[in-house]
Amino acid sequence: MSSPSLLQQLTTALRCLPGVGAKSAQRMAYYLLERDRDGGRDLAKVLAEAMDRIGHCSRCRTLSETALCRLCANPHRDRSLLCIVETPADQSIIEQAIDYSGSYFVLGGHLSPLDGIGPKEIGLKQLDECFAEGMVKEIILATNPTVEGEATAQYIHDMAKARGIKTTRIAQGVPMGGELEYVDGATLAHAFRGRSEF
Amino acid sequence: MSSPSLLQQLTTALRCLPGVGAKSAQRMAYYLLERDRDGGRDLAKVLAEAMDRIGHCSRCRTLSETALCRLCANPHRDRSLLCIVETPADQSIIEQAIDYSGSYFVLGGHLSPLDGIGPKEIGLKQLDECFAEGMVKEIILATNPTVEGEATAQYIHDMAKARGIKTTRIAQGVPMGGELEYVDGATLAHAFRGRSEF
Repeated sequence: MSSPSLLQQLTTALRCLPGVGAKSAQRMAYYLLERDRDGGRDLAKVLAEAMDRIGHCSRCRTLSETALCRLCANPHRDRSLLCIVETPADQSIIEQAIDYSGSYFVLGGHLSPLDGIGPKEIGLKQLDECFAEGMVKEIILATNPTVEGEATAQYIHDMAKARGIKTTRIAQGVPMGGELEYVDGATLAHAFRGRSEF
Repeated sequence: MSSPSLLQQLTTALRCLPGVGAKSAQRMAYYLLERDRDGGRDLAKVLAEAMDRIGHCSRCRTLSETALCRLCANPHRDRSLLCIVETPADQSIIEQAIDYSGSYFVLGGHLSPLDGIGPKEIGLKQLDECFAEGMVKEIILATNPTVEGEATAQYIHDMAKARGIKTTRIAQGVPMGGELEYVDGATLAHAFRGRSEF
């Protein structure tokens, strides 16, 4: 076999994108080459720059091209309220959806001992140092409502408790606009247990 | 407004890919940054190289990084049999699906006077010069079975007839209104075998 052509290399490289299989990758390669070379060149440039220059915020660990991210560098954000999320995407969706003025801490995953992901890997040592500074009064646990997310939330709750910091967990129940008939049993059971006075 | 962050720029740039909207682009950006930086770097490099180095074959007009594409440079391909397709993707799917040993001519589109795409834009002058050389004995019209594809086929048939070249059209086993790129191999092979005199 001769070495793969540049077109084949491009198709293969495009498959590193999530949700892109062989057929989509081929379609993307042809599309860029035949109709949007400028877009392709631009993407190549921004992609190379982003991969090299985007690191993590030294305070909240989110993705950031500066040592301190925009939110952490903003003096108007309430640093006594700390929302803890699993990923930068979760942080982004909270910022877009609600009017939250506190700060964040991004774990970059959840505890998963079988995969070798312990407290150190998700930055809990750094989080504890942050707690020790004494500025945080309340943490909002916004990890995913999955087994791993719950275990991670429990672990962080114990850490916060030892430092005398109040812990809250985002409410879990029936999603807004959803219909009871289509909600799974576990969610419904949780919604019943967590019912509040009307 | 401050200038968009590198992350936002990356998300925007990813949207130049076909079928990628705001949500998918964001997901891709986070995925590459958090899980596959090497894949992202590799993609950036191959993409930049492909956009700059892939041009068109001087003989058949398909996408090629060399002046003459691999198929045109292959002395074992039958140059008396010429298959005419609309796009490099169509050529690729034919190569993959059936055992065809002739050569190709890639139009790079179809006649579409309203969009300003006339015979010259789809390389018909070059095709006529190729006919004039006298080597081609038969052309297989494999343009899409759409209104524009049929009109383009008719136009090329008239050109070939004037040069005394036999013209065949792939059988209408290909579903009407469909596009070659998305047809399965068996159907395509059937359409090739069942080609009839134009």
